[in-house]
Amino acid sequence: MALIVQKYGGTSVGSIERIQKVAEKVRRAVASGDQVVVTVSAMSGETNRLTAMAQEIQSSPNRREMDVLLTTGEQVTIALLAMALESQGQPAVSYTGWQVPIHTNDVHAKARIESIEADKIHWQLGQGKVVVIAGFQGVTDQGDISTLGRGGSDTTAVALAAALNADECQIYTDVDGVYTTDPRVVPEARRLETVTYDEMLELASLGAKVLQIRSVEFASKYHVPLRVLSSMQEGGGTLLISEEEFEERAMEKPLISGIAFSRDEAKLMVLGVPDEPGIAYQLLGPVSDANIEIDMIIQNQSVDGTTDFTFTVTRNDLAQAKALMEATAKRLNARQVLSDDSIAKLSMVGIGMKSHSGIASTMFKTLADHGINIQMIGTTEIKISVVIDEGRLDEAVRALHSAFELDQ
Amino acid sequence: MALIVQKYGGTSVGSIERIQKVAEKVRRAVASGDQVVVTVSAMSGETNRLTAMAQEIQSSPNRREMDVLLTTGEQVTIALLAMALESQGQPAVSYTGWQVPIHTNDVHAKARIESIEADKIHWQLGQGKVVVIAGFQGVTDQGDISTLGRGGSDTTAVALAAALNADECQIYTDVDGVYTTDPRVVPEARRLETVTYDEMLELASLGAKVLQIRSVEFASKYHVPLRVLSSMQEGGGTLLISEEEFEERAMEKPLISGIAFSRDEAKLMVLGVPDEPGIAYQLLGPVSDANIEIDMIIQNQSVDGTTDFTFTVTRNDLAQAKALMEATAKRLNARQVLSDDSIAKLSMVGIGMKSHSGIASTMFKTLADHGINIQMIGTTEIKISVVIDEGRLDEAVRALHSAFELDQ
Repeated sequence: MALIVQKYGGTSVGSIERIQKVAEKVRRAVASGDQVVVTVSAMSGETNRLTAMAQEIQSSPNRREMDVLLTTGEQVTIALLAMALESQGQPAVSYTGWQVPIHTNDVHAKARIESIEADKIHWQLGQGKVVVIAGFQGVTDQGDISTLGRGGSDTTAVALAAALNADECQIYTDVDGVYTTDPRVVPEARRLETVTYDEMLELASLGAKVLQIRSVEFASKYHVPLRVLSSMQEGGGTLLISEEEFEERAMEKPLISGIAFSRDEAKLMVLGVPDEPGIAYQLLGPVSDANIEIDMIIQNQSVDGTTDFTFTVTRNDLAQAKALMEATAKRLNARQVLSDDSIAKLSMVGIGMKSHSGIASTMFKTLADHGINIQMIGTTEIKISVVIDEGRLDEAVRALHSAFELDQ
Repeated sequence: MALIVQKYGGTSVGSIERIQKVAEKVRRAVASGDQVVVTVSAMSGETNRLTAMAQEIQSSPNRREMDVLLTTGEQVTIALLAMALESQGQPAVSYTGWQVPIHTNDVHAKARIESIEADKIHWQLGQGKVVVIAGFQGVTDQGDISTLGRGGSDTTAVALAAALNADECQIYTDVDGVYTTDPRVVPEARRLETVTYDEMLELASLGAKVLQIRSVEFASKYHVPLRVLSSMQEGGGTLLISEEEFEERAMEKPLISGIAFSRDEAKLMVLGVPDEPGIAYQLLGPVSDANIEIDMIIQNQSVDGTTDFTFTVTRNDLAQAKALMEATAKRLNARQVLSDDSIAKLSMVGIGMKSHSGIASTMFKTLADHGINIQMIGTTEIKISVVIDEGRLDEAVRALHSAFELDQ
């Protein structure tokens, strides 16, 4: 008998009919001999409905009260799902965040889970019940209602799995797993059977938005086997495990797991900056202070005592970052500030990369064969990223997907 | 500085615009120097919306889960009202039932308040905040969410006023007070400045449905000065106080406070029942056992060893009560069972009635002058009720309202 934590998102519980379908899925898991804890989001559209009401009152609503308001969304879902299970003959009981309790810190709208009391849940499971728990919410030491921020139900599920020492945490979404790349760009993209937490973090942060990043970090930290699968279709989905588990299972580490990409990129160049110690900090300090996240940074080889800087930000932040940069450039007597918002970032991710040489050269050769110019390069242990012209992105993804035989 | 508990019902908080109006009303009370605790219902329509979803799943939904579901309604309202107060510059904080906590027994859907912890509320009031509390809900000793049943927000308000030792509990509704009778029948009906709890209970149970009966009983028990007033218009409304307070304030007790009436009445007659000890119980026992409430009962003077019984039930219960009665009548060899669902009950209510004779005779003479036949009569210390033909009800109410000079 395994203990499974299942999580269903807003679309999966978006109507009474869908809630009844979820109840059937849960019931089948119980029938196969598992103990099941289910955590759910608000019905799709509900969070937006509530937010709209709040914003009609306050453009920037009080955060404590916003948490009181938004947590009603999941509270509705847990009650309805518990009823649906009962109506199908499966005893069930619902708990809100404060009832479990799921203890969090007191940062409203972005709270972090500090601990979960598991006794009540184990006891109800022992009584043969399915326990339905509201995702996304918790309670502070002061007894205030808190939320983990949008998408926080994933984190709730993983934290519950860790606290309950569950055998698997299953995240049901509207996709049936993690793919080698976006199937809308490469129809031959293949679903991955397994992927490591680290690879998933790189894939997620780069645009394959299947799971909330924090939930993957949490799963990694507590070694929770995390499975992403579809609530609409059957299928085993994609299992996220640690690199050690890969080794324990004697599985071959994939050279390349997937290709992630993002179009939400823009480039800023500052030309002719005096090449002095501390110059990078002087340039980037004001941008960081404005809470603008800088992704890639390149400093050119110095020529005649001056150098050029290039870095990337999201397109949203470009105007503000450029204005800040121009002020600094003027002060430093730099020659010119240029910007380009027609770039894209493409990243190849794979834990096998560490032990194999030649990945980068194959990548660069493939792009060269297609006449695609590489504007910037960045690497980590398990990732190579390049910045290219946005207009060539799809072609580049398709070429690399094929070159690395990801479709096989 | 007075401590006031205000309660706003679903219609008063039925839209964002109305919630903002309520916030203005609350703010004005604070500006006049009062400390204010507000309790609110779910926005109008919300409870029905939630109930409909539950019933789509289960025709008779699990009661524990139904309470989890329905309590989200007030939770939405408290958050929005707290935001509205903040947006108008008035610091505020919201509490759900479990946050206060409002302790109840564990009868889901019909829970009774057992105690309220007042410390947190007093502390927040001391900080200059308005405290907004969800009506209708509480928490059981087991940490389950409970509800007081429909209309329970009135009870929450009165219980809060008692626990906080508030100076006044104000119930805002869509009427501006308690009237001498229904103004739709008698346009000259007058709003009462004061009425005693006992009179209100008679008026409420007889059709003047302004306040939930339980909340009036609660107010009476804990001597909470309770004021009914309109959330839409200005005006002092009607103050409910005890008879002792009437005396303390040296106010003249009204001979007659009001005329209540009900059309939801039906009459059952069992003729020719053997007049033996225990016969009333044999007749009425099965009806009571079926949870049918019997209102008035008359047993005629015995003639030739047999007697006739007449009693009233609500029209809804007539068919079932008649069937039960016919079965019993057969067993007892009674002659005949007759029924009439075209009757109405009219009641004159007033605490002054106790010390004045002649009320009944004036009442009967007035009805006789109009040729209205009295079918049944019942009295309590502060009430005289008569059953008459439904078709003559409006005329009777108008005649009595004028005869007792209630319009002056």
